[in-house]
Amino acid sequence: MVNIAVLGYGTVGSGVVEVMGTNQESINQKAGTEINIKYVLDLKDFPGDPVQDKIVHDIDVILQDDSVGVVVEVMGGIEPAYTFVKKALEAGKSVVTSNKALVAKHGAELLKIAREANLNFLFEASVGGGIPIIRPLNLSLTSDEIVEISGILNGTTNYILTKMDKEGLAFDAVLKDAQEKGYAERNPEADVEGYDSCRKIAILSSLAYGNQVDFEDIHCEGITKISEMDFKYASALGKSIKLIGRSTQENGKVSAIVAPYMIDASHVFYAVNDVINGINIKGNMVGDLTFVGAGAGKRPTASAVVTDVVDCAKNPGVNIMGGWNPEKLELVPFEEMEAVFYVRVKGSVEEKLRDVENALGKVASVVTLDGVSEEFAVVTAPLKEGFFEKKSRTLDRVINSIRIW
Amino acid sequence: MVNIAVLGYGTVGSGVVEVMGTNQESINQKAGTEINIKYVLDLKDFPGDPVQDKIVHDIDVILQDDSVGVVVEVMGGIEPAYTFVKKALEAGKSVVTSNKALVAKHGAELLKIAREANLNFLFEASVGGGIPIIRPLNLSLTSDEIVEISGILNGTTNYILTKMDKEGLAFDAVLKDAQEKGYAERNPEADVEGYDSCRKIAILSSLAYGNQVDFEDIHCEGITKISEMDFKYASALGKSIKLIGRSTQENGKVSAIVAPYMIDASHVFYAVNDVINGINIKGNMVGDLTFVGAGAGKRPTASAVVTDVVDCAKNPGVNIMGGWNPEKLELVPFEEMEAVFYVRVKGSVEEKLRDVENALGKVASVVTLDGVSEEFAVVTAPLKEGFFEKKSRTLDRVINSIRIW
Repeated sequence: MVNIAVLGYGTVGSGVVEVMGTNQESINQKAGTEINIKYVLDLKDFPGDPVQDKIVHDIDVILQDDSVGVVVEVMGGIEPAYTFVKKALEAGKSVVTSNKALVAKHGAELLKIAREANLNFLFEASVGGGIPIIRPLNLSLTSDEIVEISGILNGTTNYILTKMDKEGLAFDAVLKDAQEKGYAERNPEADVEGYDSCRKIAILSSLAYGNQVDFEDIHCEGITKISEMDFKYASALGKSIKLIGRSTQENGKVSAIVAPYMIDASHVFYAVNDVINGINIKGNMVGDLTFVGAGAGKRPTASAVVTDVVDCAKNPGVNIMGGWNPEKLELVPFEEMEAVFYVRVKGSVEEKLRDVENALGKVASVVTLDGVSEEFAVVTAPLKEGFFEKKSRTLDRVINSIRIW
Repeated sequence: MVNIAVLGYGTVGSGVVEVMGTNQESINQKAGTEINIKYVLDLKDFPGDPVQDKIVHDIDVILQDDSVGVVVEVMGGIEPAYTFVKKALEAGKSVVTSNKALVAKHGAELLKIAREANLNFLFEASVGGGIPIIRPLNLSLTSDEIVEISGILNGTTNYILTKMDKEGLAFDAVLKDAQEKGYAERNPEADVEGYDSCRKIAILSSLAYGNQVDFEDIHCEGITKISEMDFKYASALGKSIKLIGRSTQENGKVSAIVAPYMIDASHVFYAVNDVINGINIKGNMVGDLTFVGAGAGKRPTASAVVTDVVDCAKNPGVNIMGGWNPEKLELVPFEEMEAVFYVRVKGSVEEKLRDVENALGKVASVVTLDGVSEEFAVVTAPLKEGFFEKKSRTLDRVINSIRIW
């Protein structure tokens, strides 16, 4: 029997209890042993709840109980999660977490502690919710060198963008609706500014390229400037708009970015809508592999957490995660990255196209919308980010710009 | 160091040599040991080829060499592959194979031999080429009960259907083109009649539901009857046509089928085109997970094979595959399965719709094509397969029918 302790009885924590309860028999069979929830740590009591007898308020009860083999951290945030997780590993317990902030910031250190103690520190649920992506990167793509990772990594923003696209609504209206439905936080900054996606692409990149990628180093743009009009132009181009986290490796140099992109209808991501996530891994041998599934939600996230618990139970005393080097990976400077841009401009084509081309060079195409004469859009040639940033600032009538995939 | 022997120096075998050569350093690092190709078994010699000194013609050289830890079977077909693989396991060597025919027929037995000898019998490349699907089913979905598997499992037929759809061509013309390009065999029966997909859905279903699913028990239809006109109706319905292998589990009862389906543009599979494969797994907790990637081809398939070799090298003396029970799983009789059908009928709506509804019940919708008056199509309500088969035979003017997803 393996005893586990769940830290935090919120959405994911209660999901873990639910998944373990519903599929108890098959989970124990696959683990080859009985998995038993012995403690649930939370500040609150839960009288009448099935776990009421397991609730404890003091982490030391868990840390000092040698019969606890696996600690499941689903509290979120850096503290006290970091302290609890580190102490648990030091006390000889494997740790499973869904906490992307913790993994992005302290993953390399915690992986090292686990490795040196022949324990496991697993975090499948920290990226892509229920989508198995950490495990494939660690175990399934061992014959490939990863040359690109890209993904729709945040369900909240994908829900908002899908609504804007399909229903022609404005960002603010959809955000409000998402907040009412519980898909967006009251303070939506981490999602809509791209910070959540940024932590996730940092974790995937660290794992794929073998060195610590700091999320603070990644150029990050959110979705707050996208308007209904942008979707109209996207549609005219046969595209939609998705918030993408992306990193590429070429000759050992890694570039990374989080930003909205226009995605063509022929791309698998085009059909990844609502709160669904999609992640594409390109290997130098296997080519493109795309993984699509629920990127958040109680049961999908808990499913990924419990899968990690099963792996801990199956591998006592054996470290199974490769992990990455804590040494920091220097990213290619943002200014030197390249992109093709859609640029929306005030004025008529006759009046303004020459100015645009004087600033940005010859454009690849011009897009006008039926019945709209006071503005137009262009698609540029591939341009360096630094060049585009500088030159587009010299243009006085740019309304918005979005990269094209 | 782990010595391996490659049985068969065809497309996949030479791909294995290429992948191991190209990514040698990172592969050895991930395996934690040097992986060395010691022998390549083939009937032919390959003078001037990098492996010329490793070629042997006698399997016994490999079986009797105790320094060989892993045998890679990439010959295809049942014999002599089955005999060689069984002897290799009995000689204490782990086996990796890309051979779906072998796994579908003898998988349960070979898994059992491997398990009892603390060896591994791994077959990631047998389904979905480079897509990691066997490993996720075995290792990543341990907290879920699988309720449905569906997939575009054959690259050749997907290439043909994509060409027919995008270019409005007839089946025969596209098949000929695919044969010339090497995407289809000279004898294309195994692909176009669905037999290849059938073996693959049998393997995935055996693994997911825990008992042997015999591919001979699965109702299997190919793509030879699909015409350009069917794609015109599909397009009018906002759909495309894909060959799908599918199995579902409800209350312990498993249904399975291989057949062309009309897939809606909103489904991820709609954008899975050309030789790409897509596989969807639905778990009772995680919901839908979709995996998309190259389902065939030298390097992607070899990448999956080498991944299995790395797993063997990392786990000497430890069996890591769950496998399935050799006891046969009785499928729900085909006649009792249910589907919604598109039915293409000769005659005008006025003339024939009443006959159709008399036979099949009230239809959900009627589709007519611009400029086409001598025929039409209907979409039925959900019908039992047995009922549809019997009743549609009583209709004298049915041209074709295809299930709708």
